[in-house]
Amino acid sequence: MTVKAPGCSLCEAPGGRVVFQAAKWRVIHAREDGFPGFYRVVWEDHVAEFSDLPASDRALCMAAVAVVEQAVRAHLGPTKVNLAALGNMVPHLHWHVIARFDWDSRFPAPVWAAAQREAPPARISAVAASLPALEQDLIVKLADPA
Amino acid sequence: MTVKAPGCSLCEAPGGRVVFQAAKWRVIHAREDGFPGFYRVVWEDHVAEFSDLPASDRALCMAAVAVVEQAVRAHLGPTKVNLAALGNMVPHLHWHVIARFDWDSRFPAPVWAAAQREAPPARISAVAASLPALEQDLIVKLADPA
Repeated sequence: MTVKAPGCSLCEAPGGRVVFQAAKWRVIHAREDGFPGFYRVVWEDHVAEFSDLPASDRALCMAAVAVVEQAVRAHLGPTKVNLAALGNMVPHLHWHVIARFDWDSRFPAPVWAAAQREAPPARISAVAASLPALEQDLIVKLADPA
Repeated sequence: MTVKAPGCSLCEAPGGRVVFQAAKWRVIHAREDGFPGFYRVVWEDHVAEFSDLPASDRALCMAAVAVVEQAVRAHLGPTKVNLAALGNMVPHLHWHVIARFDWDSRFPAPVWAAAQREAPPARISAVAASLPALEQDLIVKLADPA
């Protein structure tokens, strides 16, 4: 049974399109304008901080993050991957895994900074077109992350 | 021997005040205006992405991140801790561990967003005054993170 907190948006809803559901975590595709290669690993239990987890669960969690990062790298060839667990707005442990490209609207600044340019729509579409193959691969690898 | 890349600022310099030096990583205190509780775990070898590391090194790295997070929580009582490995500017693996407070200049936005207010200098000083005790404790725990 998972531990839920009333009123927490990540306890009450998936928070995005579910790509893979494990016992203790799920991977969702986030809908973030201009950033098609944006996934989140969401911990199922309501915990605020990474270090609230025991070491074995931290390892499970980061193994999932690493598998998502590897799939993003293999299929999207990003300039860089950004990983972050912030949770200031929604204090329920979730890891952002974001494919960054030198043509995206914020690069090299973080996605949370002000826009520096408009990203070319054709580039965004090309990344989006690679997601089904990425996710097919991801599902296989997440089922056996070892 | 560590793997270095010519011209990389985190290969050529510590990148901040060194709090602890391990064989494969170091912890530095970052000097970031308005954010006194800002540490980084910097991987010694020049690797760009978290998933460039083998699983055993990812575990070592995240164990250090968790110990820093725990010390930050215990000594500073932050509203939230933010963790991030971005590296768009300096593609050498480093984890930001940032104590966030509801009074800081960006909260609840990420530190990379635009300022929303001026942080009270007395609050910043109070956090800074807690760092020596935090770091004394941190050094003990990083020497034996298990």
